[in-house]
Amino acid sequence: MPVTTTGKVVVMTSGGDAPGMNAAIRAVVRKGLALGLQMWGARRGYEGIIDGVLEPLSSRSVSNIIQRGGTILHTARSPRFLEPAGRAQAAEVLRANGMTGLIAIGGDGTFRGLIRLAELWDGTTVGVPCTVDNDLFGTDCTIGFDTAVNTALEAIDRIRDTASAHDRIFLVEVMGRQAGFIALAAGVAGGAEHILVPETRTDLPAIAKSIAEEQKAGKTSQIIVVAEGDEAGGAVEVGQKLKDLLGVEFRVCVLGHIQRGGSPTALDRILATTLGAYAAETVREGVSGQMVGVVNGQRRRTPLADAVGKKKPVDPAILKLVDILAR
Amino acid sequence: MPVTTTGKVVVMTSGGDAPGMNAAIRAVVRKGLALGLQMWGARRGYEGIIDGVLEPLSSRSVSNIIQRGGTILHTARSPRFLEPAGRAQAAEVLRANGMTGLIAIGGDGTFRGLIRLAELWDGTTVGVPCTVDNDLFGTDCTIGFDTAVNTALEAIDRIRDTASAHDRIFLVEVMGRQAGFIALAAGVAGGAEHILVPETRTDLPAIAKSIAEEQKAGKTSQIIVVAEGDEAGGAVEVGQKLKDLLGVEFRVCVLGHIQRGGSPTALDRILATTLGAYAAETVREGVSGQMVGVVNGQRRRTPLADAVGKKKPVDPAILKLVDILAR
Amino acid sequence: MPVTTTGKVVVMTSGGDAPGMNAAIRAVVRKGLALGLQMWGARRGYEGIIDGVLEPLSSRSVSNIIQRGGTILHTARSPRFLEPAGRAQAAEVLRANGMTGLIAIGGDGTFRGLIRLAELWDGTTVGVPCTVDNDLFGTDCTIGFDTAVNTALEAIDRIRDTASAHDRIFLVEVMGRQAGFIALAAGVAGGAEHILVPETRTDLPAIAKSIAEEQKAGKTSQIIVVAEGDEAGGAVEVGQKLKDLLGVEFRVCVLGHIQRGGSPTALDRILATTLGAYAAETVREGVSGQMVGVVNGQRRRTPLADAVGKKKPVDPAILKLVDILAR
Amino acid sequence: MPVTTTGKVVVMTSGGDAPGMNAAIRAVVRKGLALGLQMWGARRGYEGIIDGVLEPLSSRSVSNIIQRGGTILHTARSPRFLEPAGRAQAAEVLRANGMTGLIAIGGDGTFRGLIRLAELWDGTTVGVPCTVDNDLFGTDCTIGFDTAVNTALEAIDRIRDTASAHDRIFLVEVMGRQAGFIALAAGVAGGAEHILVPETRTDLPAIAKSIAEEQKAGKTSQIIVVAEGDEAGGAVEVGQKLKDLLGVEFRVCVLGHIQRGGSPTALDRILATTLGAYAAETVREGVSGQMVGVVNGQRRRTPLADAVGKKKPVDPAILKLVDILAR
Repeated sequence: MPVTTTGKVVVMTSGGDAPGMNAAIRAVVRKGLALGLQMWGARRGYEGIIDGVLEPLSSRSVSNIIQRGGTILHTARSPRFLEPAGRAQAAEVLRANGMTGLIAIGGDGTFRGLIRLAELWDGTTVGVPCTVDNDLFGTDCTIGFDTAVNTALEAIDRIRDTASAHDRIFLVEVMGRQAGFIALAAGVAGGAEHILVPETRTDLPAIAKSIAEEQKAGKTSQIIVVAEGDEAGGAVEVGQKLKDLLGVEFRVCVLGHIQRGGSPTALDRILATTLGAYAAETVREGVSGQMVGVVNGQRRRTPLADAVGKKKPVDPAILKLVDILAR
Repeated sequence: MPVTTTGKVVVMTSGGDAPGMNAAIRAVVRKGLALGLQMWGARRGYEGIIDGVLEPLSSRSVSNIIQRGGTILHTARSPRFLEPAGRAQAAEVLRANGMTGLIAIGGDGTFRGLIRLAELWDGTTVGVPCTVDNDLFGTDCTIGFDTAVNTALEAIDRIRDTASAHDRIFLVEVMGRQAGFIALAAGVAGGAEHILVPETRTDLPAIAKSIAEEQKAGKTSQIIVVAEGDEAGGAVEVGQKLKDLLGVEFRVCVLGHIQRGGSPTALDRILATTLGAYAAETVREGVSGQMVGVVNGQRRRTPLADAVGKKKPVDPAILKLVDILAR
Repeated sequence: MPVTTTGKVVVMTSGGDAPGMNAAIRAVVRKGLALGLQMWGARRGYEGIIDGVLEPLSSRSVSNIIQRGGTILHTARSPRFLEPAGRAQAAEVLRANGMTGLIAIGGDGTFRGLIRLAELWDGTTVGVPCTVDNDLFGTDCTIGFDTAVNTALEAIDRIRDTASAHDRIFLVEVMGRQAGFIALAAGVAGGAEHILVPETRTDLPAIAKSIAEEQKAGKTSQIIVVAEGDEAGGAVEVGQKLKDLLGVEFRVCVLGHIQRGGSPTALDRILATTLGAYAAETVREGVSGQMVGVVNGQRRRTPLADAVGKKKPVDPAILKLVDILAR
Repeated sequence: MPVTTTGKVVVMTSGGDAPGMNAAIRAVVRKGLALGLQMWGARRGYEGIIDGVLEPLSSRSVSNIIQRGGTILHTARSPRFLEPAGRAQAAEVLRANGMTGLIAIGGDGTFRGLIRLAELWDGTTVGVPCTVDNDLFGTDCTIGFDTAVNTALEAIDRIRDTASAHDRIFLVEVMGRQAGFIALAAGVAGGAEHILVPETRTDLPAIAKSIAEEQKAGKTSQIIVVAEGDEAGGAVEVGQKLKDLLGVEFRVCVLGHIQRGGSPTALDRILATTLGAYAAETVREGVSGQMVGVVNGQRRRTPLADAVGKKKPVDPAILKLVDILAR
């Protein structure tokens, strides 16, 4: 492996937390140390860098965290970093501390920050995709997505018990402001009768008609999964509109923040381990401005600008399956 | 055992569903059959009786259901049964089918119905306490409560991951319109900093002061559990009021219907098994108008009027503990 | 509250670990501090005392542990403490460090040690019952029991899927060398066809006859739960004997150590919180040689000698229910 | 879509059960019906075909099963089908009932049977890969693998609590007679210090040396994951050998059958849904002798002979990571 960077590398978590952040920190730190790097942690993402809250990390600092939700480094959204003065301060802190690399674990806001920071600082920047939303180009899955889907699925399974016992229709809202990945995966796995995602046009009158037909055919309970960012509205709004169309009552569950926490699934821990290690290798090689990912089972680097700028599509085939299988 | 009733017994589930309803049905049916009774099921609670939707139940009909959420007999709230004509019709159906007993699995609305029905029908009526709210006098725990608490607790554990990662304060609303049992149990077990229940006066300015002090002392994340029926409001309303007092933002999670479903815990299945069998014995003995329960580890019968009329208090000692232990 | 002790109190966990040990430590420490005591922790039970490995504990040292399995103080069985020299050394360390009280969280071995230590040291000794086995007199439940039962139950639910799919008979061995509490609770809750516990005589030929009859009646899959200490043997031995009697194959699962770990259930956390706080009060009052417990919903103290010397019986009524309900 | 087959199609589950079998049955049946096929089910795999135990399946027969472990069609290993007479009888039953296709959900034994059956019967045969072992060529994942890994992982997480509390070394044996996929995935995700799989040579003296060094460096607890088919032996045998080398005691947990049951994860349900539907399409098109799979996110067909005959390798990169990350 060509050694183009030596050094002193900061790792941080930033933006919304996601299950697997700790597993990624562990892999970044231990692989970095194994590659001869000094590893440091910043608390609360860009906030910690701006304030110079940095701490050295040893192999022991990341013991027994692979299974924990949340992040031992804490995370934050940093309004100061959105301002030029904040970014300049961050770059100055990195320089003053002799840092040669920065590994940012987070989602698209985090990576946009990394791109801006690189305008002011010439260290090696690497992004690790970690967000429940799965809306980053350049990796088949983001870290945290599989856990969030399984958490939503468990909730849907519970709600189906009640829906079935009461012969009722439930609307379940899951996370996803821009993207329907969670809704689609949890909906298909939960056997939902309808799934509403931002990527496809939602035709409420058609859905209302289908509900009415299914009820007539004896299907007395139904689950409709709604991505929070669906253009027809969240679950509360969709429920009101369907009620207006059909004259029947819908129950609404908004799953909310429970989808961010909890112990990560095996898939998320393995992905975090793979990508964390790959990020350490990437920073060690001095390859900057990249997000690490796994595409078709292979590790791959994608320029940060593409990772946040290109659109990752949902699988239309699976969406069509819902129409067939839920009958 | 004195044989004062023989017969033909209907079992039904009514009102809001709760985990353990199926385990209770299984025990009622199998113990009833073992006692020489004919066992029948009514679908959708009082609705099924009014409509005469009755089916014979065998030991095999209740196989492999002890672990399932929901209820194989379905449940409903019956507006017709609230009217004299509906109740008369129900009584007539029971007579016409030669029923000698009715075992109702449900909560306080169900038992109030049973009391009214007994005015019109002279079969043996027995109630099995099954509601997540735990608000029935005459039993230390209702069936479903322990599962609901653990479901809420799991959600709180997840939310704490995020609260801690982001140094935020979360308000978590749990079920409990009249009673704070779920809030108290899930809050204590979840290490909540504050628990708001209908049984005690909620002093929001005092809570705001305490939050501010704890933040000053470095406790940057907190969980506040709110029973939906707290007199200060649900979590959304409390969050707004606290924001007005403190000027900081609160995140709100309303757990909702996920607390009703899911596979019952061991405790709920054992309680359902014990009480279901006891209900069958009670109907077999012709002891009518009673709710079966477990008090201090002993099976006990309580008149239905007391079960719904007397107030079961929350434990004030445990509420005081929160103030000490959450610091 | 009469102040008869001031002081400096050590808390430790000892013997086999159980879910809820951390919740108990948290309650002991925070309640102790609130009562004005200095709180210290010993690592690895009696081992840590003998070696003088003591550390002061603050309210922050026990933050965010209520939900964790294991024990932050570590635990051990101490062969040295079984020797007079070891106990003398432990007493000397406690004296030399000015300790006035010792709170031991553990099971019967731990409490026997506490009794012997009290012969050599005049500080206040208090026991907190924390063992998955539930085999201590003076408390309806020990901390950790409910979690272990639910863990075993979850395994039994999984195994039933396979048993049912393959029309097979499974023997599931659960913990319980001297006592059948886990077997009984998990077996009843899991709908087991037979439950073998040390407290009752196991009649294998009768069980074999019953299995054959049930198979003839069409019950093709069965679950038999065996406490590891059943006098007929563990699951492997019982399986061999039944095979000899019936000529059919049995599958065997030994659940083992998974029953000790994991995040504690709500019930275990609440019990740990209640008893941990009560232990701190007890040591503060200078009441020595007692185990704290909850009996019929009330906190109660029991002399340590009774806690380990008297036999807590399993509930025979529930055992009889199995014969009726599993048919 | 070219219509080269019409017809009457049997679906069955065969061999060891795996989570997701029911989700696959649901997708096969509903997609088959949507394509105009008559769908039938055989009970207990080849056994049911030999005995002519066939039943028509409607859309409602597969309602509310997507989340269930086990298989509603039951499964079995069929010794009779291994004999020419049994296979001839199976072919005769399929002909006599006018069946035009057979969809077999199972693992390599099931598919070998399908190959042999095709010598005697000219209907369309399609295999759906469903086994916890993940040892089939032609699909990145088999249905059931992800659930089994997460079940094993949950057990490892629990065991780590105890290992850490007691400063002990645990050997955990997971399923995998020929293949180390479960061991590798659960081990990496569980942060295991060592992982022993059949695909690589196990060097016990080297492992013993590494354990000793780590203990010296203060790593007092360790988890070693062993695939049941490792050439050095299962966990019991490996534990004995390591004890002979090191003179320290190892605790052993054999996870066993719990890895087969339970509600499938989101990934397994989605994969089962995708592949079940694809199998129905494949049989509808009259494409015979194929296993359906997903490779690099794309649906793909592989001749059954390749599926069972070619070797799917474990990922060596991830195995190397263990050596770095577990330190």
